[in-house]
Amino acid sequence: MQALWLDGNISLRTDLAQPPPGLGQALVRVRLAGICGTDLQLLKGYYPFRGIPGHEFVGEIGAAPDAPERIGQRVVGEINLVCGACRECLAGRSNHCLQRKVLGIKDWDGAFAQWLVLPLSNLYPVPEGVDDRAAVFTEPLAAALAITQQVAVGPGDRVLLMGAGRLGQMIARVLQLSGCELLVMARHRRQQELLEAVGIQWVGEDAALDAEYDLVVEATGSPGGFELARRALRPRGTLVLKSTYHGSVELDLSPLVVNEQRLLGSRCGPFAPALRLLADGLVDPLPLVQACYPLSEPTAAFDHAARRGALKVLLDCGN
Amino acid sequence: MQALWLDGNISLRTDLAQPPPGLGQALVRVRLAGICGTDLQLLKGYYPFRGIPGHEFVGEIGAAPDAPERIGQRVVGEINLVCGACRECLAGRSNHCLQRKVLGIKDWDGAFAQWLVLPLSNLYPVPEGVDDRAAVFTEPLAAALAITQQVAVGPGDRVLLMGAGRLGQMIARVLQLSGCELLVMARHRRQQELLEAVGIQWVGEDAALDAEYDLVVEATGSPGGFELARRALRPRGTLVLKSTYHGSVELDLSPLVVNEQRLLGSRCGPFAPALRLLADGLVDPLPLVQACYPLSEPTAAFDHAARRGALKVLLDCGN
Repeated sequence: MQALWLDGNISLRTDLAQPPPGLGQALVRVRLAGICGTDLQLLKGYYPFRGIPGHEFVGEIGAAPDAPERIGQRVVGEINLVCGACRECLAGRSNHCLQRKVLGIKDWDGAFAQWLVLPLSNLYPVPEGVDDRAAVFTEPLAAALAITQQVAVGPGDRVLLMGAGRLGQMIARVLQLSGCELLVMARHRRQQELLEAVGIQWVGEDAALDAEYDLVVEATGSPGGFELARRALRPRGTLVLKSTYHGSVELDLSPLVVNEQRLLGSRCGPFAPALRLLADGLVDPLPLVQACYPLSEPTAAFDHAARRGALKVLLDCGN
Repeated sequence: MQALWLDGNISLRTDLAQPPPGLGQALVRVRLAGICGTDLQLLKGYYPFRGIPGHEFVGEIGAAPDAPERIGQRVVGEINLVCGACRECLAGRSNHCLQRKVLGIKDWDGAFAQWLVLPLSNLYPVPEGVDDRAAVFTEPLAAALAITQQVAVGPGDRVLLMGAGRLGQMIARVLQLSGCELLVMARHRRQQELLEAVGIQWVGEDAALDAEYDLVVEATGSPGGFELARRALRPRGTLVLKSTYHGSVELDLSPLVVNEQRLLGSRCGPFAPALRLLADGLVDPLPLVQACYPLSEPTAAFDHAARRGALKVLLDCGN
């Protein structure tokens, strides 16, 4: 089959075998996949993954030995493959399974391929009205929804979101649904336009902000955002860290102690409500799609995705 | 009056006037005061305070123009002087008053003196059975109680406390009350003995710890503790930062995001329950007292308090 292969560089390979589904697993014919910030970081060598990257996708089940009735189903997929038996799984935190593999990120081949394999329990049927290009956003939209699972956000809250890129745009729409008083710090004109189009207030990144925000969400993907985010936070406010980045930062933690602030790391979120928001049209990610490349043009696709201010670049996986 | 004066160095002054109580304030004759880690940091010049330091004390009300009935009352005092009218005060977070002064720490002369002034509303009567030397611990015990106000801790939790110094010993006793499964990382033999005496389990600071703790409290007062604390935390666990220290640290925040952990700054706590714990004998701080010096021996007192592993050093304020 055709697939992109990460090994320092990224390149097209045509010599890889279609992966065989194991017990309780399904073979998925990938239609579209999305390039996310993590994929760009993998390409830079920030994580030691070698194999087929890609973890945002929509496809259809092509084979499922244990559930033949699901063949043909259009699906998106939860990216964590978990053991179900370790301490974290048994404690109800299976996203943190000690033996976990992660689709296209850790020990499991991903979605930039004609075919992928995932456990049946990871695969969620996509409601009929949802466009393939929108369905690809289920994973990042779920990640955005993790925030409102972790922190109560409502109309009484002043919220600052820092960063309006691929993930930031999803987070902005999820926060908007809560009815909070929302301000988004957006660097690029296209990001600002997308926010304006849905009635979300924004400021440029040079805006002076008082320490009055109840909640600040850091999604810039850059280490410099942390101190700015902390300073915008009121005493006893909550700072959600939504982006990972390579390397360490110089931090003075004393203001966090003195102001009794709360810092919260946030990663994956729930697929079912993300699909419902897409099906009900409460979140429309289509304006974020900027290009779609065939698998045979990995360099063009990744270069595009890596441009400053780029939003979503899709890969057509040839199915 | 006699008082210690901080101005780069610490020295005894005898030329200072007794401070006059203002509207709603009381003049307190200080009996005993305690030296805390913050005082040592002030002496090192880490904060720009100039004046009389000291914020842990017990004394008696000597004058109170608006409440003569309180004269003679034995009291301890809340250290934050607040405006009651700013955004933070009106939001119920008066400990974070934007105009706040802090006894012996910020813009308000402190307790290493024969007399101090505080608002009447800051002064809590000390129950009769509580020894003066125990009453001095009300402030650090209240600070320890802030933790169980901020985080639910109970018998189902595995808790690691890092640091068993002045504040750490108070935190250990508060955590023990919750019935949690508690382990304290204690460096010095005297610290370990104090924990043993009340049946609290400890390990040395070279112990290897799995990432299995639901809650980790960092109270070492040293920047190196952070990474060790984070690594002992389970996914989605909570790390309470209880100590401030000068300067910044190199931190990689990505593990916090990936493991969806929570960081919580914690500072001042409630006086009323602290006094109740002392009165009921549920916390006995007396074994922590290592020495008591007169105000006239500031160098000896501060040198003693700064020794590695030193616990509580008191100052007898001459009343």
